[in-house]
Amino acid sequence: MGKEITSRSQDYSQWYNDLVIRGGLADYSAVRGCMVIKPYGYALWEIMRDTMDRMFKETGHVNAYFPLFVPKSFLEKEEGHAEGFAKECAVVTHYRLKGDPDKKGRLMVDPDSKLEEELIIRPTSEAIIWNTYKTWIQSYRDLPLLVNQWCNVVRWEMRTRLFLRTAEFLWQEGHTAHSTSEEAREETLRMLGVYADFVENWMAVPVIKGVKTPNERFAGAVDTYCIEALMQDGKALQAGTSHFLGQNFAKAFDVQFLNKENKQEYVWATSWGVSTRLIGALIMAHSDDEGLILPPKIAPIQVVIVPIFKGADQKSLIDEKVKVLVKQLKSAGISVKYDNDDNSRPGWKFAEYELKGVPVRIAIGARDIENNSVEIARRDTKEKMSVSMDGLTDRIANLLEEIQLNMYKKALAYRESHITKADTWDDFVQLLNEKGGFVSAHWDGTGETEDKIKELTKATIRCIPLNNEQESGKCILTGKPSSQRVLFAQAY
Amino acid sequence: MGKEITSRSQDYSQWYNDLVIRGGLADYSAVRGCMVIKPYGYALWEIMRDTMDRMFKETGHVNAYFPLFVPKSFLEKEEGHAEGFAKECAVVTHYRLKGDPDKKGRLMVDPDSKLEEELIIRPTSEAIIWNTYKTWIQSYRDLPLLVNQWCNVVRWEMRTRLFLRTAEFLWQEGHTAHSTSEEAREETLRMLGVYADFVENWMAVPVIKGVKTPNERFAGAVDTYCIEALMQDGKALQAGTSHFLGQNFAKAFDVQFLNKENKQEYVWATSWGVSTRLIGALIMAHSDDEGLILPPKIAPIQVVIVPIFKGADQKSLIDEKVKVLVKQLKSAGISVKYDNDDNSRPGWKFAEYELKGVPVRIAIGARDIENNSVEIARRDTKEKMSVSMDGLTDRIANLLEEIQLNMYKKALAYRESHITKADTWDDFVQLLNEKGGFVSAHWDGTGETEDKIKELTKATIRCIPLNNEQESGKCILTGKPSSQRVLFAQAY
Repeated sequence: MGKEITSRSQDYSQWYNDLVIRGGLADYSAVRGCMVIKPYGYALWEIMRDTMDRMFKETGHVNAYFPLFVPKSFLEKEEGHAEGFAKECAVVTHYRLKGDPDKKGRLMVDPDSKLEEELIIRPTSEAIIWNTYKTWIQSYRDLPLLVNQWCNVVRWEMRTRLFLRTAEFLWQEGHTAHSTSEEAREETLRMLGVYADFVENWMAVPVIKGVKTPNERFAGAVDTYCIEALMQDGKALQAGTSHFLGQNFAKAFDVQFLNKENKQEYVWATSWGVSTRLIGALIMAHSDDEGLILPPKIAPIQVVIVPIFKGADQKSLIDEKVKVLVKQLKSAGISVKYDNDDNSRPGWKFAEYELKGVPVRIAIGARDIENNSVEIARRDTKEKMSVSMDGLTDRIANLLEEIQLNMYKKALAYRESHITKADTWDDFVQLLNEKGGFVSAHWDGTGETEDKIKELTKATIRCIPLNNEQESGKCILTGKPSSQRVLFAQAY
Repeated sequence: MGKEITSRSQDYSQWYNDLVIRGGLADYSAVRGCMVIKPYGYALWEIMRDTMDRMFKETGHVNAYFPLFVPKSFLEKEEGHAEGFAKECAVVTHYRLKGDPDKKGRLMVDPDSKLEEELIIRPTSEAIIWNTYKTWIQSYRDLPLLVNQWCNVVRWEMRTRLFLRTAEFLWQEGHTAHSTSEEAREETLRMLGVYADFVENWMAVPVIKGVKTPNERFAGAVDTYCIEALMQDGKALQAGTSHFLGQNFAKAFDVQFLNKENKQEYVWATSWGVSTRLIGALIMAHSDDEGLILPPKIAPIQVVIVPIFKGADQKSLIDEKVKVLVKQLKSAGISVKYDNDDNSRPGWKFAEYELKGVPVRIAIGARDIENNSVEIARRDTKEKMSVSMDGLTDRIANLLEEIQLNMYKKALAYRESHITKADTWDDFVQLLNEKGGFVSAHWDGTGETEDKIKELTKATIRCIPLNNEQESGKCILTGKPSSQRVLFAQAY
């Protein structure tokens, strides 16, 4: 078909790029490190965003919008936070351009427009939000404050990859304020649960919930919880994080509340976020050499119908039949596209919608109409079957559910077969280099060992799983005593 | 009630600010010129955004996302565009901070991170988008391209007002590409129509559709169409614009397509946008000294229910009754809030929801339950009535429709009585200074006269209405011949 998609086995990284670009999800832009999210990719993001937004609202959160700019002095206030983000900040220093006197038709930065204080493009919004919360929170009656924001953020990255790591990306960031530590920790875990629910049940990607080691913590957090997913090349991908911030930001921005005992107390905080990076996870967890494979629950097009005809008479006969079918499918809440474009041949269309990962394809020709049947093809297994038009809508609805489930099961089976225990350094290294996936091993609990292991194997501790089994053993590198295994992997 | 809202007659501008801040819509931020959109204001924006988004999709548009940054050299490419926006650009010059060696714990811009080319925070996205379209458009088959983007933009403003004029604001910008001038002009007017439909039928604000004079055109456009609304202080507000860009951007970015005759041709373009400024228009078109008055079709809360009780017994009786009512209202698609918070008295709540502009209030006490009745109060007319619980949902649904219509009619009557003809300079000045509103007068068609009139009266030509009546007359300032009246007003 001349689709020219690099195969996974040949070059995984190029395969990924081909899918993103050829599948119409995103493209590089003329601005270093920034991507253009194309209409098909954005439609996917809209469904993901709207679904999560509903989940956030169902758990009591409201949306708001805070400024794009963070004054430099705000970023400085929480020390760990400042250190963590200083190296990747886009900085606005001037607010005006003017005609360049030396170059006709060219513009230059007007030196007279220099800002007294530089503004950082938000890499995350804790600083600007906690400065605002100071005026919103006076008493325990103002708590909890459960706010979320959908926006763009900028983190200047040297090496970028579409969706996975770009200078600008879209995300949501929840920022909540609580009167007790317990309540804030509950919230942190609640939102981790919401993320896991979304990624597993909508994106059909199984995740491991866990807590990060101090080395991998969010800059400014007391504890960072995460969900970790496994990609088809055996690398892990952090799909979402939820941070228990303790009183760090409340202290940095002096946010206190009058408690029920009429005493001033610092507020307890959480923040949590997922981004367009999830689209990268989705692609790498499910797709194949023919293109994307999208789970029905978030596919922008769930069913595509392709007519197969010779001449205008056959076409109009099929058009008429399909019109009814489209109506039935839509009224069952199924998103459907009828592609009866004359300019492309059915074979080209088949390949195109495979590339775009549409879960179900229906082909219908003149003979099918005679037989009161259609041909159904599912994208996940590539199975084809001829089925009756009678009861087709129910059948399709069931098939979509089946595909959703099957995709999850397949990804889960892969993930389950890629969590391997290692008890010797040699095994550990070999597993990481050859089999990939998560390697469950003992670790002595120090950042130094973690750094050393990363240096030697490129693997990091992805997380300490929640409710981790306690088991005494010896650190895989140093042999020092350890009370539990942790999950190592090479990661995106 | 101690609400401390400044009255309109006392200080219109302060009244507006009080409503925005006290009504919980937005607040100033610590960043100069940027606002925080608070949860209630953002909920309103979400409804407005989602409604328009549906309308855009129904007219064949898809969403996408383009980078926040515009390289300086891109902005330079379209001369008029560059001139128009250069003076209000936030400029990113560096991409990293580092610890300040002279001040412990402080950050400074790392001079080694200076960008080779400065990046402008998008004030609008024509430049970055047309640079992208160059790669998307090859042949007439790629046209029309009907893309919209929801995003934040930054225009550095010296004097800012919440929603009306802020350095950063949220908006949508449609950017379409067409193979013919006619088709692009049709699109420009189609989207103007969509805006008018939304503002009139959802926001209940009547608008005048027209075309801008060359002085007031968008920088880079061939023609700028607009919808103009009238505020209660007699000032006009531009509520949305739709631009016919001709081939200006296609030529600046060299975007050509192969037409059906196999010849290269420059693409024809439109762009169109509305912003969070619409919220300012909404407030100033409808509200009163008690607070906001929101049209039911976009109100985040359409109905609020306030219980009036003494003691826990009465409360639980009312709670139970209301539970059923809430369910009925919700299943009729009505958004309802039951405020049975013990900490506030009914009188305080009444004032609070009046301030927040909730269209319908239902009060229910123990005696109401005995009588199988409730008290309904409508926000727009402040009318109260005791009505039976039987058929209450239908009654509320009808009432919401009636309020929506009544608000539009009221605003329309005000607008109609504030379009006044002036045929002498003295009348013209007096009308603008005393009565306000639109003044319909003859103009000699020159930018000089327009500038002079602005200087003398602060009034600008808001638009030349579409399908304007032709009528010969003499320019209100110069006495030179004129073929039609245009609409002047002082404006936001």
